[in-house]
Amino acid sequence: MAVGLQGLPTLHPVPGVRLGTAAAGIRKKDRRDLVVIECAPGTLAAATFTKNRFCAAPVTVAREHLKKNPPRALLVNTGIANAGTGNPGLEDALASCEALAKHLHCQPGEILPFSTGVIGERLPRERLLAGLPACVTNLSEDGWAEAAHGIMTTDSLPKGCSRQIRIGSRSITITGIAKGAGMIRPDMATMLAFVATDAAVTPAALQSCISSAVNVSFNRITVDGDTSTNDACVLLATGAAGNAVIDQTQDEAYWIFLDGLTKVFTDLAQAIVRDAEGATKFITIEVTGGRSEPDCLAVAYTIAHSPLVKTAFFASDPNWGRILAAIGRAPIEYLEIDKVAIHLNDLCVVRHGALDSGYNEAKGLAEMRLAEIRIGVELGTGSFATRIWTSDLSHDYVRINAEYRT
Amino acid sequence: MAVGLQGLPTLHPVPGVRLGTAAAGIRKKDRRDLVVIECAPGTLAAATFTKNRFCAAPVTVAREHLKKNPPRALLVNTGIANAGTGNPGLEDALASCEALAKHLHCQPGEILPFSTGVIGERLPRERLLAGLPACVTNLSEDGWAEAAHGIMTTDSLPKGCSRQIRIGSRSITITGIAKGAGMIRPDMATMLAFVATDAAVTPAALQSCISSAVNVSFNRITVDGDTSTNDACVLLATGAAGNAVIDQTQDEAYWIFLDGLTKVFTDLAQAIVRDAEGATKFITIEVTGGRSEPDCLAVAYTIAHSPLVKTAFFASDPNWGRILAAIGRAPIEYLEIDKVAIHLNDLCVVRHGALDSGYNEAKGLAEMRLAEIRIGVELGTGSFATRIWTSDLSHDYVRINAEYRT
Repeated sequence: MAVGLQGLPTLHPVPGVRLGTAAAGIRKKDRRDLVVIECAPGTLAAATFTKNRFCAAPVTVAREHLKKNPPRALLVNTGIANAGTGNPGLEDALASCEALAKHLHCQPGEILPFSTGVIGERLPRERLLAGLPACVTNLSEDGWAEAAHGIMTTDSLPKGCSRQIRIGSRSITITGIAKGAGMIRPDMATMLAFVATDAAVTPAALQSCISSAVNVSFNRITVDGDTSTNDACVLLATGAAGNAVIDQTQDEAYWIFLDGLTKVFTDLAQAIVRDAEGATKFITIEVTGGRSEPDCLAVAYTIAHSPLVKTAFFASDPNWGRILAAIGRAPIEYLEIDKVAIHLNDLCVVRHGALDSGYNEAKGLAEMRLAEIRIGVELGTGSFATRIWTSDLSHDYVRINAEYRT
Repeated sequence: MAVGLQGLPTLHPVPGVRLGTAAAGIRKKDRRDLVVIECAPGTLAAATFTKNRFCAAPVTVAREHLKKNPPRALLVNTGIANAGTGNPGLEDALASCEALAKHLHCQPGEILPFSTGVIGERLPRERLLAGLPACVTNLSEDGWAEAAHGIMTTDSLPKGCSRQIRIGSRSITITGIAKGAGMIRPDMATMLAFVATDAAVTPAALQSCISSAVNVSFNRITVDGDTSTNDACVLLATGAAGNAVIDQTQDEAYWIFLDGLTKVFTDLAQAIVRDAEGATKFITIEVTGGRSEPDCLAVAYTIAHSPLVKTAFFASDPNWGRILAAIGRAPIEYLEIDKVAIHLNDLCVVRHGALDSGYNEAKGLAEMRLAEIRIGVELGTGSFATRIWTSDLSHDYVRINAEYRT
C-alpha cells in the first residue's frame, strides 16, 4: 500500500564503508534481521537518538560508546527492540558489541548497537552471536541494498537514497538507508537511519549538519504520534573523497554538503511516511502565517494527529470541518478565526474562517481522491511557516497494529 | 458494541421540566432529530461550552442568550452541527429561537439552541421549523427517554441517568441525558448533556457545582483526542423541590448536592466512552504519584491518545511496552524511570521501571481479555493523582469515521 514508493534506487557505494547481513532467526525464520555496517579507521560519526525517557538498552550503549570513540562498526538487529529489559538488556547489548569486536579485531567500545522490534522481550543473545560470522564474511561496499532489507520490520518496502554532489573538484557520495513504518513522530521514532558519506568533514560541522538536516526531515514526519524507545539516525563520514575538509567556516562547501545531506534525509523520511502502516495517502501539511515556528508546528501536528482528519483522508471525504475543528483546538495562544484559510492542493476551501464561495463538494472530492495531497493552512497572523508529512488512518493501520505480535 | 452499557434506566421526571421530540427530517428520514426541553419560569441554568475557537453558531447564540436571560427552553437538533457556517449559520440559529419562542409565548433570547452532526453544512431551516409544532405538542415531564433518543447521532444506545437524593427533609431529583460517541476529549467534545434538577440552588452555587462536576466527569473522557465545535453541558434547576436554597456557604447540603450531581455526570460521561465509536473495551487510566495534577493528566492522556496502545487493547494484546513508551514521551518535566510502576487491573506488570518478576504473558492476556480494564500508573515522584476514561481503537472506529458522510 506504500504511496508513491518505488523499489530501491541505485545506492552508490561509499568508499570505506562495507555492509554485511545475515538471517539470524532473531524473531522469525529465514529473513535478514542482522546487519553490520563497518567503516574504515578514521571515520567520523555523528548521531541523534530518541528523546523517549524509556530509551532502549542499545541506545544507552551506543550513546556512551559514541561519546568515547569514533566507531568501527554499527550492529543492527530487527525483531526485538531490547527496550524495557533493564540491566539484562544492557548486558545483552554489551555482549553483542564484544562479540562483533572480536570478529573485527577492534574494541567493544568501537561498536554502536541498534535494535528495533518488539519492546520488553530479551534479545536472543546466542542466535544473534551465531549470526555475526555470516555478516562479517559478506561485508561489501555493495551491501547497501541487502542492508536496507535487513533492517526492515513492518516496512513493506526497503528504503534507501543516494546522491552524488560536487564540492570543489571532488565528487562526494551520500548514501543512506532507513526503516520505519509506525510509531513515527518527531524527535525520532521507531526509525533507524544510517547514512554514510566519503566527504571529509570536521566533527563539529558533521554534528551541525546532522542536527540541521534531521530537524527538517525525520523530525517533521508523523504517522501516529508515538515516539519509539529506539530511534536513531547515524551519519558516518569517511573522508575518503579527499575534499578540503568541510568546517563551519567554509561557507560554500558547507552549504552544498548540508543541502545534499538534507535531500537524502528528506527522501528517506518521506519514504517512511509513504510506507506508513496502512497508508493510502501521502499528506503534506504546510502551515504559514503563524506568529512563531512552534505555533505553526502545533497547528500542523494537531491536524496530523487527529484520527478524524486521518480517517476522512482515508475515505477521500472532503470533510474540511474536521480540519477546521483541529485548527480550532490547536494549543496555541493566538488564533484569529476570521483570518484562517485552508487549501487542499491548490483548491481554496476555507477563506476568512468560512467556506470559500468558489468551493463545492465535487471539487473537494477531486482533490481528496489523489494519493498525494497538500493541506495548506494560512493563519494570517505572522510570517512563520513550517511543513510536515503524515499519512491517513486506514483499516490496515488497525489490523497491522492489532496483529503485530500474533 | 457498547461496553457494559445497558438500555436506559428509569429516568425520574423533574417537576417543571417537560420534553418534546420530533422527526423533522433534518438529515435523515424518520428518525427523531429535534428535541425541545422546556422549563418552568424561574428555572436557573448554568452551562459549560466547547473551548474550540471555531465554535458553532448555536454555541455562540446559546452563550449570549444565557448571559442575558434565564432560559425558558432548550432547542436541540441532530444531523447538522451548524458549525463553520459563518453569518448565515448564526441567522439560522437565531431564526430557530424566534420560531420556538412564538410557540412557547416567550422571547427568542429565552431559547438556547444546540446542534450536533456534520460540520460545514447549513441547517435546513424550513424542515427544522416545520418540526417544532410536533415537539411542542408532545411536551411532557415523562419525555426524557424519547429526548435521549432524539439527541443521538452515531450513538448506538441512548444515554441517561437519574438519581434521587435527600437534602434535609426533601427528596431531590437529578435527571440527565447525554449524547456523544466520537470526537470526544476533555474541554468537552461532540457531546451534549442536558441535566435538570428540582433542587433550589443559588446561581453562584449552580455554576460552581456544574464546573466542579464537569471537571471530573465530562472533562476526563477521551475517545480520539478531538474537541468538537459544538460541545455543551447544561444544568437546569427549577427549585420545585422546595428545599432550603443551596448556596456555597451551606456546607452539608452543597456537598450532598454536588456529590449527587457528580455521580450523574460521571455516569453519563462514562456512558459516552462505553459507546465510543467502535469501542470493544472500557479503559480507566489512573495515574498516581505525580508532582502535580496536570502532570498526572499529561501522562494519562498520552497513554489514552496513543494509537498503538489503543490498538493493542483492541487486540487484547498485553503489549505493555507501548504503555511504557507512551509514559516515556509524556510532556512532563520530571520522570524517574526507576520509580514507574504499571498495573493492569490488580496485576503488576512493571515495577521500578522494568518488567515485574511475577508477571508473565498468560497473566497479562487474562487481564487484557476483560472488557473493562484499569491501567494503573504510579510515577513515584509526588502525591497527586488523576483518573480518566477512554476506549480502544478498532476496525469499526475507522469504518464509522471513514463512512460518516457516505
